[in-house]
Amino acid sequence: MKILVINTGSSSIKYELFDMDMLKVLAAGTAEKIGEESSVFTHKRILPNGEYEKKTDIKRISDHHVGLNRIVKILIDKDQKIIKDKNEITAVGHRVVHGGDTFHSTTLINAKVISAIEQYVPLAPLHNPANLTGIKVAQSVFPDALQVAVFDTAFHQTIPMKAFLYAIPYELYEKHRIRKYGFHGTSHAYVAECAATYLGRPLTELNLITIHLGNGSSMAAIKNGKCIDTTMGMTPLAGLVMGTRSGDLDPSVPFFLTDNMGLSPKDINRMLNQESGLKGICGTNDMREVIKKMSAGDKRAKIALDIYTYRIKKFIGSYFAVLEGLDCIVFTAGIGENVPYIRERCLKGLNRLGIKFDSEQNKKAGNGIKEISSRDSKVKTIVIPTNEELKIALETKKVIENSG
Amino acid sequence: MKILVINTGSSSIKYELFDMDMLKVLAAGTAEKIGEESSVFTHKRILPNGEYEKKTDIKRISDHHVGLNRIVKILIDKDQKIIKDKNEITAVGHRVVHGGDTFHSTTLINAKVISAIEQYVPLAPLHNPANLTGIKVAQSVFPDALQVAVFDTAFHQTIPMKAFLYAIPYELYEKHRIRKYGFHGTSHAYVAECAATYLGRPLTELNLITIHLGNGSSMAAIKNGKCIDTTMGMTPLAGLVMGTRSGDLDPSVPFFLTDNMGLSPKDINRMLNQESGLKGICGTNDMREVIKKMSAGDKRAKIALDIYTYRIKKFIGSYFAVLEGLDCIVFTAGIGENVPYIRERCLKGLNRLGIKFDSEQNKKAGNGIKEISSRDSKVKTIVIPTNEELKIALETKKVIENSG
Repeated sequence: MKILVINTGSSSIKYELFDMDMLKVLAAGTAEKIGEESSVFTHKRILPNGEYEKKTDIKRISDHHVGLNRIVKILIDKDQKIIKDKNEITAVGHRVVHGGDTFHSTTLINAKVISAIEQYVPLAPLHNPANLTGIKVAQSVFPDALQVAVFDTAFHQTIPMKAFLYAIPYELYEKHRIRKYGFHGTSHAYVAECAATYLGRPLTELNLITIHLGNGSSMAAIKNGKCIDTTMGMTPLAGLVMGTRSGDLDPSVPFFLTDNMGLSPKDINRMLNQESGLKGICGTNDMREVIKKMSAGDKRAKIALDIYTYRIKKFIGSYFAVLEGLDCIVFTAGIGENVPYIRERCLKGLNRLGIKFDSEQNKKAGNGIKEISSRDSKVKTIVIPTNEELKIALETKKVIENSG
Repeated sequence: MKILVINTGSSSIKYELFDMDMLKVLAAGTAEKIGEESSVFTHKRILPNGEYEKKTDIKRISDHHVGLNRIVKILIDKDQKIIKDKNEITAVGHRVVHGGDTFHSTTLINAKVISAIEQYVPLAPLHNPANLTGIKVAQSVFPDALQVAVFDTAFHQTIPMKAFLYAIPYELYEKHRIRKYGFHGTSHAYVAECAATYLGRPLTELNLITIHLGNGSSMAAIKNGKCIDTTMGMTPLAGLVMGTRSGDLDPSVPFFLTDNMGLSPKDINRMLNQESGLKGICGTNDMREVIKKMSAGDKRAKIALDIYTYRIKKFIGSYFAVLEGLDCIVFTAGIGENVPYIRERCLKGLNRLGIKFDSEQNKKAGNGIKEISSRDSKVKTIVIPTNEELKIALETKKVIENSG
């Protein structure tokens, strides 16, 4: 069985084609700058040994429909030897950012599902319209394939009301669905399952804190395999300090900026999403760059890292308290997987929570799952590479098997 | 030595007169609705046995100057036998809400101090102007007394940058002083000192979490006697759920309300400060009422209490993590002192943090300091009545003795 996973942005399509019998990626790539004069098309054919051949092509892709046809064309290209016909693709798995509180799990797409995703456009005005475009284009390009939606928010739907409701007028929740939703759910769910496998224990008996640190960052508190809290909120702006996003903030700050600096809500929203976080404090959102600057004595880079790691530490404590028992902490995503310095700063001094980490082990390079806690640590601490595309493919497969 | 403590609001003056040699309150009261037709003047003469005689008078008080003279008049009234002459008052201690990052401790007021308090008006537009009025009126009514400012923010000035800086463009901190300040400092400092006395250990060797739960609520993390973090922020809106204030919130929510409901920043600010918190969720901000409603099966009241206590629990975990060792938790202020149900909900399930509380002890009525942890609890948990006025008087005394 072959499944195509696509992640559609406002001017891009990311794709990955899986052979589900072999659990292998056959090809992957992106169509970017769709609609511009020089769109960028990148394609990788993955070789059996894991290496890949890459092609890049710069040429106008007028819209997402043209973009997806371009992807199909290269997948069925005879020289590529990936697939012979697009009908070999049984299903298309779509990443959908916001499923509101309608979608608790992966869902086969039909007209009702599409209109529900439309309903959540106000909550994710940048993402859901693009995801809908992706779905519509895929339906027309692959009329015979099943279309499946995998929601970033679904894993967090087990969060109880005491953790998801804001203390604002209740009708804002009832009428406008304002509440915490959480994101990166696919990643948190994936690494939680990997952790259970690694520990050789059923996920339903494990309490975990999963820490996804990438361009966007979030943490999840997982009790007996179910998410009970997360750091992101109604939108992906809340919680941790990110590359360019502020994370949590006194909710009065925007009003101060309106009153004293004459900024509009739009300006401020843009500032908090694009000019804040690490970039706002020290001028760059590239973590390697920030660490380099700090090592060279840059004070702003130092304080940026202090804040970044201090806030993670505070959430570890928070989640430790509400989980009432912690088995395992997982670090994942770009920064979580690859920056030992950040992991060390987050974990240092937490031995009263039963967290002892092994500094040497933490620094060791290497791919794959890596345990970084000491042997006598009550709480296991593990680095697990995330793979949202694979999780989307697996979820898609499960749904089509169950629906069949 | 007699010290008058005053807390001036935009249309009110609260006062308390202390005999510092006896450490006793001689009289206390409020002038309210200043500027309205029927201002309310309340005065209590405190009797030696702690009981009091109360007088209430409804009559126009045209401005704060008239209000303060009214207070003086009753204090020197022959029948009251409180003081004979206003010159017996050595000093006036003023509660000042926002001292920004200029004032790290209680300060003798001079022209420079006044202009610094003026400088922080944009950060506390409701409070600092009223506090300045109080100072100016007191200077003219008590020309021979020393005037002292006790700042709500001062105790929190030891908070390190990693905890006070927001992850937003750095120039907002440099040019506009946007950062976490924290409030209720006088209360947190007072109960921390009481806890040290109660435990018979020097405050400089103690790690504490102080939980002030009143109309406004905040928590402080105190390491070796110094505050290292607190839940309120640049303004008193941030952090815990309060009577009518939201506390922490996804910073995107205001933008959603602007875009989708056409509310202005002013409307939203008012809503988050006055129509949110317990009131926003269940319609009332009176904690006794909320508990009564919950007991009668009201679901909204139940969820309001769930959120209220869940958030406190999360901050206990947070501060436990960053304090790296916790000796004592203190509950104080109206709700913290008088509502055992809330304390129980906040502490339950935290035995992994070394917190064991004694349910029977917690329920026992009684004034004064009360220990509610079990004998074998690593972390002592204590209820301590706060007394911000006494703390202001003591601070004022210390300053005038040192300045003399």
